[in-house]
This record gives sequence, structure tokens and C-alpha cells, in this order.
Amino acid sequence: MIMKKQTQISEKAYQSSGFIRKYQKLVSDVVIPWQEKILWDDAPDTEKSHAIANFINAGKVLRGEDPGDGFYGMVFQDSDVAKWIEAASYSLMNTPDITLENELDKVIGIIVQAQDEDGYLNTYFTVKDQDKRWTNLHEAHELYVAGHMIEAACANFEATGKRVLLDCMIRNVEHIYDHFISKGNPGVPGHPEIELALMKLYRLTGNSHALELCSHFLNERGKDPELFINEASKRDWSVWNSNPKDQGDLEYRQCDRPLRSLEKATGHAVRAVYLYSGMADFASETGDDEMLSACRRLWDNIVKNRMYVTGGIGSTVQGEAFTADYDLPPDTAYAETCASVGLIFFASRMLENNIRGEYADIMEQAFYNTVLAGMALDGKRFFYVNPLEVDPGISGIVPTHRHDLPVRPKWYQCACCPPNVARLIESFGKYAYGENDDTAFCHMTAAGTVRFRNGMVLDCKTDYPHSMNVNYSVSGTGRLAIHIPGWSKEFKVTVDGKDHNAERRDGYIYIDVNGKVQIEVVLDDTPHFVYASPRIPRISGMIALRRGPLIYCFEGIDNGSVKSVRINRNSKPCVSAYSAELGAHTLLVDSFIEQDTDELYTEEQPVLGPYEATAVPYYTWGNRGETEMRVWMQ
Amino acid sequence: MIMKKQTQISEKAYQSSGFIRKYQKLVSDVVIPWQEKILWDDAPDTEKSHAIANFINAGKVLRGEDPGDGFYGMVFQDSDVAKWIEAASYSLMNTPDITLENELDKVIGIIVQAQDEDGYLNTYFTVKDQDKRWTNLHEAHELYVAGHMIEAACANFEATGKRVLLDCMIRNVEHIYDHFISKGNPGVPGHPEIELALMKLYRLTGNSHALELCSHFLNERGKDPELFINEASKRDWSVWNSNPKDQGDLEYRQCDRPLRSLEKATGHAVRAVYLYSGMADFASETGDDEMLSACRRLWDNIVKNRMYVTGGIGSTVQGEAFTADYDLPPDTAYAETCASVGLIFFASRMLENNIRGEYADIMEQAFYNTVLAGMALDGKRFFYVNPLEVDPGISGIVPTHRHDLPVRPKWYQCACCPPNVARLIESFGKYAYGENDDTAFCHMTAAGTVRFRNGMVLDCKTDYPHSMNVNYSVSGTGRLAIHIPGWSKEFKVTVDGKDHNAERRDGYIYIDVNGKVQIEVVLDDTPHFVYASPRIPRISGMIALRRGPLIYCFEGIDNGSVKSVRINRNSKPCVSAYSAELGAHTLLVDSFIEQDTDELYTEEQPVLGPYEATAVPYYTWGNRGETEMRVWMQ
Repeated sequence: MIMKKQTQISEKAYQSSGFIRKYQKLVSDVVIPWQEKILWDDAPDTEKSHAIANFINAGKVLRGEDPGDGFYGMVFQDSDVAKWIEAASYSLMNTPDITLENELDKVIGIIVQAQDEDGYLNTYFTVKDQDKRWTNLHEAHELYVAGHMIEAACANFEATGKRVLLDCMIRNVEHIYDHFISKGNPGVPGHPEIELALMKLYRLTGNSHALELCSHFLNERGKDPELFINEASKRDWSVWNSNPKDQGDLEYRQCDRPLRSLEKATGHAVRAVYLYSGMADFASETGDDEMLSACRRLWDNIVKNRMYVTGGIGSTVQGEAFTADYDLPPDTAYAETCASVGLIFFASRMLENNIRGEYADIMEQAFYNTVLAGMALDGKRFFYVNPLEVDPGISGIVPTHRHDLPVRPKWYQCACCPPNVARLIESFGKYAYGENDDTAFCHMTAAGTVRFRNGMVLDCKTDYPHSMNVNYSVSGTGRLAIHIPGWSKEFKVTVDGKDHNAERRDGYIYIDVNGKVQIEVVLDDTPHFVYASPRIPRISGMIALRRGPLIYCFEGIDNGSVKSVRINRNSKPCVSAYSAELGAHTLLVDSFIEQDTDELYTEEQPVLGPYEATAVPYYTWGNRGETEMRVWMQ
Repeated sequence: MIMKKQTQISEKAYQSSGFIRKYQKLVSDVVIPWQEKILWDDAPDTEKSHAIANFINAGKVLRGEDPGDGFYGMVFQDSDVAKWIEAASYSLMNTPDITLENELDKVIGIIVQAQDEDGYLNTYFTVKDQDKRWTNLHEAHELYVAGHMIEAACANFEATGKRVLLDCMIRNVEHIYDHFISKGNPGVPGHPEIELALMKLYRLTGNSHALELCSHFLNERGKDPELFINEASKRDWSVWNSNPKDQGDLEYRQCDRPLRSLEKATGHAVRAVYLYSGMADFASETGDDEMLSACRRLWDNIVKNRMYVTGGIGSTVQGEAFTADYDLPPDTAYAETCASVGLIFFASRMLENNIRGEYADIMEQAFYNTVLAGMALDGKRFFYVNPLEVDPGISGIVPTHRHDLPVRPKWYQCACCPPNVARLIESFGKYAYGENDDTAFCHMTAAGTVRFRNGMVLDCKTDYPHSMNVNYSVSGTGRLAIHIPGWSKEFKVTVDGKDHNAERRDGYIYIDVNGKVQIEVVLDDTPHFVYASPRIPRISGMIALRRGPLIYCFEGIDNGSVKSVRINRNSKPCVSAYSAELGAHTLLVDSFIEQDTDELYTEEQPVLGPYEATAVPYYTWGNRGETEMRVWMQ
């Protein structure tokens, strides 16, 4: 069977229900309106954003008017607006809302006014100093911001059919093309992102300059180790005083060698997975096998050597970066929410190249654990950093743990993660379902209705990830490919009530559909222990807990001193009650608890008493106040 | 029984043998000559010191001559010379050496030439800018350097009876007294050290200005939170761009509150224990009970909440500092060698206030583990940082572990630790033995001969810390107090071959001596497991190994993958062969070894096979090339 490459469905084709619906509603009802307020500087008790004001002021500058209060914020402040537009546009597809659509039009109208005649669009440079445009690719994130706005434009067009922002960004791409290709100015993005955005634009519009630009940035990257040093030598200003000669700077920016020769996932984790996503997109679209081989090596390095069990990546706060194989400290982890969002992007692109269950597995692992943990259950607070262990009194306080907060903070000035979570949740259908001409793909179990381009309609009913029973009502003609998660060693499939002897091929089962069928998939719903590789120094010999796609953790609020709990490995964890507060099942684990002592070190063998420990899904942690938490247990 | 306060013996009164002799010989034969070469810039392949050249050049400046190549090095470069003089002077007492004595005289002659007419002595300011003297107590370490030179002067006088350096430093103290007391200039040392040095000088010479200055610095410290801010506002230069307004700066320098109200050991660990030593000295000498109470609180906080099992202190590289209670990460530890040297100083001073075995226990714990680990077995390489766990590929490489090197480096420019180890080893007798008019104290088991002021002569024969049998031949009249280490729950004492029904009072046994007696003390020589408090997040549930005062560790060179080894807690570790290479006994521990897997996470219960693990004394680690090491095991 030769499989034609599949691509994501349109978000419009998926109408969610169940768990995903609940989250999309939360994002539509709470997160997006709240972010909008922030962007307009209307949110109380929140650090000023000024992001929309920057666009208004840039428009004034271009019209020769007084620029008001000028530019404020990070050099990439524009991207906050872009990510909001993208999330809000997806939201329109999931939850039509004419008021929101009008508000989007208004913001887009302001953005278009901030675009220069030559297609340039970036409020930092337009307001502050137009002569400095494109002179600091190393630090100033111009191409990163453009990338996010291109993604926003694609989503807005997809949602509304309106071309205002799309045309604006096509003009912007022409401007960038002119600068880097026609005029031959050297340069690659200091912060990758635009690569995957250009591929989106190309796929949506067929714009060949977008593809050519993406190819250019990918192929030039890492060729000239002096690139940013030469660039810096030509200017007398800096955004962050980054020194391109610093050891590690090239690796931090994934510029240390040509992309095709990359062997290890290195540097800033978000940049890395955005870049690899663009590479995989490009490989899928152009059949560039050398690029795909590099993607596969990078993928393997991440998932086999550098990923937390929660799907978090980037072990250290210093550079928010990958470190070394097997360096996966639970308590000083960075594991940025955005990096797991990016890992899902990368996985989804790898799936477009090859249907392999491991890609879909990692999407779920990252989504149901780190990404969801990034947002409070009420949608009002966010983690940027997702440790697998916190200890009040140490976490968030001592220098090595200052970034690992035990409770979610509100908005940051560097507001990257919350809108990233919002746009991912609102576009969940794109990642959950895929298609090519003859096959419809269910990569992730997601309740709701999907209308595939080939006419097949699928309705999925399930309480997944809390229940492992999944019912599909399918009508149409064609092949249906359903991913069976790798964690479900045992599973059962019935088609119209009859056992379907499903062979799992690369993680998927295939069912030919002709007319209407009822398919039931029953996955393994028992909790399992997870054992860490003895190669991981920090957790060798330790044990975690999984049920379905959910990794569990132990919180002090349920268990007192979590550090004192020792899991009985010969026991079987079992599902306890459903917790309404957490909206999830808790697990009970037969354990021992060590008697407390106020001596640091003792030679008396510790006294262990029997204990029944309670575990909750990792994504729900930190929602009940400051309390101890750990995923990996003795 | 009311015990009169005891003090350290003179190093001259102790002639070492056995283990301590071996180390003193190593320091005399290897470390001191090598450091001397470095100070004279005669050592090949070593970072330039220029420390003696700085004194030569300062002398030239004072004589109005051309200052040659000026000043080079750290602002506290002079202290390297001071610490060498101190160590070399102690060495003379242990190993008379007329050549070394002449070389010392030569260096001291150079130093004296660098002293200004008004008594000021500091080459950084004398060479660079005399107008800046005493304008940057916050950063410039002038009082710290003076303190070390005072200590050097005391040791040199004690060793040789020569007053050249002693008189020089008495003039220097007069200068400092004049500046801070007579003229009333505000200020306390940014880096404490001089306090304990002033107490040494006072005790040696009765110089009342030294006592008054110490009292002044201790009592003023922490009173004015604006002190360094005001100081900084009056100058336009800086050594390290430290900002006295930075959050944590006051705590870092132990200036956040008056010393008498300190509750927790905070800030830079070396500064902290130097300061606390000075406080305890002062309390002992003046009977200041409020100061002693503060010392006791700080002591308790360190040993009950903030100390590694190796006697290391200061958990984080950031500020080389104390962090929070129970934050004792083994792999990212700082645990600076100098800090454990300082902890021994503090313990020794606490012993002068009260005879309590715990002080002597901690001296041994710090000495036989962290301090000795600070130096390679050949005396040629040194650790500044003493982790309890290293993993090649991660330690010394990833950002969080960059300071935790798996092998000892050679000389650093900031050469604080090697001379600190040297001076401690060469003055070991002062810490091991103490006295008052009627009692001779053996605080730490140390082979050799001691002549107490009261005429008692003690000869100690033992292979301690490798053997736990200790034989004392004592002659004279008076009381002998022998510390029985806290780890030796069982012990046996015989006097002239007869069982002595020794009652342990606060960790000591007391024997009245009249004439000649033979005393044998047999301590527990069996290896024991040590269990970590469940309150320590990083090692809760883990196990370490101790025999006598030695904490053991497991190295990759003996055990392959140390991370894969699981100790069988129901076993009894046993002494294996004597390793000639390490000069110590190794231990064998019945264990299990986990089968390797290349999967990060697995749901298959790991396969454990039987294994006999080999442990070596922690102080010997890292002497056989780069290899995995851990103290705390699963």
C-alpha cells in the first residue's frame, strides 16, 4: 500500500464536542476576550501591552502624523496581536461570533494602516527608526513577527474568506522577497518561525515566492558562521546586547551548521521546533529527502534523548534551551509551554511526511500534559515553565529554581505562551484529523464531527481522555485510518458490532468505509507505571504513572508530604473517584510513607507505614493553591 | 563540672604522624613549593599570578619609582600571598626547613616595602590609585585582604618568633583603627574575614585595638541597610559592577540585619562562615551571650538544614551561596572547598565556647570529605566545587552543571581554595587538639605527639580514618577529654589494659591522668548506610554509605553505570580490599543493577540483576579520570 501524503484538514471541517469542545469554549469565552482586552490595554491589574497602540502609532508615523506615545514593549510585541488574530480566527470557525469577527476586522484595519508602501510591516522599526530595518536579524525578530502575522492572515482568510490581512501579508512577503532574494541581501531569521508560515501561505495561495523564500532561509541557514558577526559590525545598536561571538550563540540560534547536517536538537527549544516544523513542511511539499532525513534525526534525538515524559522539551532556563542527552531534571526543568506547542507542530509535519503512530503519540503526550498544564483550569492563569516537581520554599525561590513557579502567574510582558496555547486549542482539529484523496486520518482521538474533502463524514463520540471508549459513526466512501496510541498495547475494534481483526500498521488501523458504519475502538483504560531509563541521571530508578494519554502527578494537597511517599511497585494503581473540581479521574496507588524526622541524615533505617497515595492528571496540577507536586516518585 | 573555656593548641605543640603526617608532607613537599612558584610567576602552563610582583611594584610606587608592569590580577590578589605565608609558616612548625624560612623572609621583606607610611597595605590601590583607598568596601575586599595578612603574620610569628610581618600588620591595624574608629568613617567589610583575624591578633598580642575593631565591625554590621548604597553614590567606579540596590545584595553580604538577630545562614557561604567564626571568637573572648546565641542559631540552621552529608555548604553557584532549608541538590551543588574550611573554623570556635561533640563531629565531616576531596591525591589539582554526583556529558557541560567538574582542574586565577586547604592541613593540630589549664582535649583523632601547656604529653598512634583503633600514650597530670565521634554509637575504652567505664558527656569522655597511662579507644569500624531526611527533595528516599568519618561514593570506573545500581538496603556493606592506588579501603555493597535500555520511558518493569557495588571514600573521587560518581544511591 503506497500512502499518498496527507495534510491537515481545515479547522472549519471539524466541529468539536466533548473534552476538546470544553477547552475550545474556555478559550473562546475566556482567553481570547481577555487577551483582546490586554492588547487594547483595557485589562485591569495587568502589565501594559500597548500592542495595538503600537500599530496605531506606526500608522500615524507613515501618514506623517505625530506618533503619539510611540512604541512600547518587546521588540516582538506585534506577534502578540498576530497570535491573538490567529487564535480568534480559529475560534470563529469553531464558534461563529459576529462581534468577534467585527473586532478582528477592526484590528486588521489598524494593522494594514501600519504597513509601509513598500510592504514593510513592523511597528518597532516603523515607530522607532525606519533606517534600522533589516539591520539586526540577529536579535530583532522582524522575520519572526512577520511569520506570526502570515499565520494569522492564513487563519483569518480560512475563517472568514476575507483577504485584507492575507493581501497585506502577501505584499509583506514580496517586500521580504525583494530584500533577500532580488536584492540579494544576506541574512536568515535570528528566531525561526517564518519558514513554517511561508509554507502555510504557499499551500493556501500557491504563492511561489513564499516557497522560494522558505527554501532560501532553510538552505542559507548555518552556512556562514560569521553572518551575525558581520551584521553586528555594521551597526552601533543592539536590542539585548547579545554577542554573536559568544560561545554557543550559533547553536542557540540553530545556525552552527547547515540544517541538512544537523544531528542533535540544540539551542532555544521553541526556535528549534519551529524551525524543524518548517523543514518538515518543506520536505513534505518538495520531496526533499535530505531535509527529511535531517528532520528524522532531530525527531529521534528529541523523543529518544531529550524529552520529558510530559512531552516537555528544553531542560534549562538558560537560553530556554536543549542541553545534553538524558539531562532531564524534573525540578529545574524549563519545558516551556510554547516549546511543546512547537513540538506538536513538528510532529504534525512529520505525519505529513510519513504516517507513523509515534508522531501522533507525541502530539498527544505534549498536548494532554505540558500544553494543557500551561493553562489554569479556569483559563485565567498560565505557566510558561512546566516543572515535573515543585517544592514550596524552594521552587520559585532559590536561584536554580526561580523560574519553576509552584502556581500559575497572570500575564507576562513576554506573552508568548498563552496565545500559543489558545491558537493550538482552537485549531485542535487540524492536528487531530488529516486527509488525502482516498483516506481520512484520525491521528488523535477528538470528539466531534469532521467533514473530509472526499465527502466522508465522521462523528466521534467519546469522553476521551477520561474514558478510553471511542465511537465513530462514519458515512461516505473511502478508507479510514485510526491511530491506536502506542501506550494501548491491548485494544479492541468493532465495526457495526462485529469484531474487526485490526492489524496495527505503524500505529494505525485501516478500515474501508462504504456507506454508513459504526466503529467502536476500546483502548486500554488501566493505569500503568512508567519507568525512567537508567540513563537519565535525575530520575533513574524512579516511577511515574499514566492512564491513557495522561501522565499523573502527586500533589501535597492530597498526600501531605509527597517526598515521603514511596510507591509500591508490585501494586496495581486503580482509578478512584471522578473529581468534579479537577474535571478528571484521580488514581489511587498502594504506597508507603516514610516517617518524618528533623535530622538531615540518619543511620536508623526509615520507618515506612502503609499509605494510599492519590494521583491527579499532571495537566490539572497547581490549580488548588501552592502545594508540593511531583511526577517521578521513588 | 564547670569547664573552663579551652582554646586551640599552638601548631608547634603538635608533631603529626600517620594520615595527617602524610597530608602535611604532601602540602609541604608539593603544594606549598608549587604555590610559591605560581606567586613568583615561575610555574609553567599556569595562569599568571603576579601576586608578588604586585607587592614589588607597590613598593616602587611608594618610593616614587616607576611601577613597572603595575598591578595584575583580582582585586584581592594580595590574599594569595597571605594564605601562602600562613600555610608555609605552619609548614615550618611541622617540617622545619631553613630554605623555606629564608624564602618567607624574602617575601615578607617585599611586603613590608609595599606598606605606606601611614600603615596602609594593599597593592591594588597603592599601584592603581591611592585616592580610592577605603571608598569601595562593598566590593574591593581591602579588609578581607588585610585579614588574611594578619592571619599570615600571626602564623609567621608563631612559627619563627620573627616580628617583621607581625609588626607590619599591627601598624596596618592601627591604620584601620584610625580610619574607622578614630576618624569615625562608616563602613564594614564587604567580605568578612578580618573579624576572626583581629581576634587571632588580639589573642596573640593582647592588642586592644584589634579587639575593639572586631567589636566595631561586628556590631555595626547590618545596622545601616543604606551603607553600601551611600558609599556607591560617592564614587564613579566599580570593581564588578555590583549594585548595592540589587535585591539580595545585603543578604549575600550578611548585611541585611544586625548580627545578633540573625536566624538563618544566608548569602555567600565562605563569607558567612568566616563571619560566624569571628562572631564565635568574639563571644568566647568577651562572654557576649547574645552573640553566642546568634552563633548557635546559625550553627543549628547550617547543620540541621543546609549542609551536605559531606560537610559541604552553599548549595548554589549563583553567589556561591546558601539557598533555602533542605535545598541540597547533589549534582548542581556548589559546596565550595573554602566554605568547608570555613565551617571547620566556625566549629572550632564553637568548641571554644562549649565542649560539645557535634562541633568536633562536623569538623571531621567537613575535613575528611569535602576539604580532602578539594585536593587530588597527588596534591597537584584542586576542586573548588564539590558535587555529590557527576555524570560525564552533563556535569561541567550543561548550563546548570557547568561549575560541577568531573575532574580537578589546575590553578585558577581566583586561587582561593588550594591555599585554604594547604593552611588548614598544615594547622590540623590546632583543630584536633585543644587545652585549658587543667584539661587536654582530643577533638579529632590525629596521630602524632602533642605537648600541652600544662606539661601533659600525649602520643597518639592510629591508622585513623582507615582503622578505628586509637592508642594514646599519655604522661603528665591533669584531665584528658577525648571526643568519641557521634557516628560511633558503640565504642570501647581501656586504660592501661582495663575496661574504662566511660560515660560520654556531650560527646566526650574524661580520664584523669596522673603519671603515665596507656589508653585505647576502639570505635565502630563497620560501614553503615546513611538515610536522607524525607524533607530533602532531591535525595529523599536515597541512601549513602559511611565508614568512620568517611562518606563513600560510587564511581563509574568501578561500577560501570552507577545510575543503574540499586542498593540492597537489607544487606550489610562490608570492607573490601585496601586500594594502594587510593590509599584507602574500598567497600562492597550487595546491590542490584538495572538492565540498560535505549528507551527514555518504558512500561516494562525494569529487569534487575544481582550486583556487588564498589564504593570508595568520597575524598578519593575523581582521581582516576573522568567517570560517573554518586554519593546518594537509590
